[in-house]
Amino acid sequence: MGGVNTPIDLTAAFAAFDQAWSPRLAARVNDYDIRLARFAGEHVWHVHNDTDEFFLVIAGEIEIALRDPDERTVVLPQGSLFVVPRGTYHKPSSAGGAQVLLVEPTGTLSVGDDHDEVPAHVDATTGHALELTS
Amino acid sequence: MGGVNTPIDLTAAFAAFDQAWSPRLAARVNDYDIRLARFAGEHVWHVHNDTDEFFLVIAGEIEIALRDPDERTVVLPQGSLFVVPRGTYHKPSSAGGAQVLLVEPTGTLSVGDDHDEVPAHVDATTGHALELTS
Repeated sequence: MGGVNTPIDLTAAFAAFDQAWSPRLAARVNDYDIRLARFAGEHVWHVHNDTDEFFLVIAGEIEIALRDPDERTVVLPQGSLFVVPRGTYHKPSSAGGAQVLLVEPTGTLSVGDDHDEVPAHVDATTGHALELTS
Repeated sequence: MGGVNTPIDLTAAFAAFDQAWSPRLAARVNDYDIRLARFAGEHVWHVHNDTDEFFLVIAGEIEIALRDPDERTVVLPQGSLFVVPRGTYHKPSSAGGAQVLLVEPTGTLSVGDDHDEVPAHVDATTGHALELTS
């Protein structure tokens, strides 16, 4: 349970995968995942009924559209963080591409509990192993 | 529960406090805190019996001494992450000073469940409110 034996360098971790909207599992903290994801273009409107979702922008800039309940969009430049509360429909996007660290309970599905039709470029997943080359 | 209404910029957040070893509560994710802490010099040997502890170095470099069970030290440069497993005695330090993002359950005490004598420069706390000036 938990723990990584040696530190993980974010630059090396993001160099290990190219696919956007397909989070990698970097570490486990109790029953939570630390996930790393590339954002590029638009994700899909979705909601997590039972969990908040934490975003920290490592590189680039992202936007998160929210139905709060009126639609609004928050902009997260590099080095900023935000939490989408449980039960809030949201759609992340990144016009220019970005690298993002996420914190959420293990098993949380990337497209939530309810979502619009998932486009082909969005991976509906609970996260993939981070395969570091060295 | 959870949520911050607007994004928090890490540069502004760290500009809002100077005290080392005195974590600020930047956000809440379900029953977990996202904490921001300045590291400078040595913390104290301590253990969290029931929780892992996540470290991400935002600026500077830190070291974490571990009794694993033999003593070893991991070095975390800027942009690296590490999880200290529950039950592992550890002592964070930063010779040159650092800014660190932590993830741990709300209520987790900064000096753990068991610790050496806490020096005056270490704040035994479950975290303080982050007071942003603007």
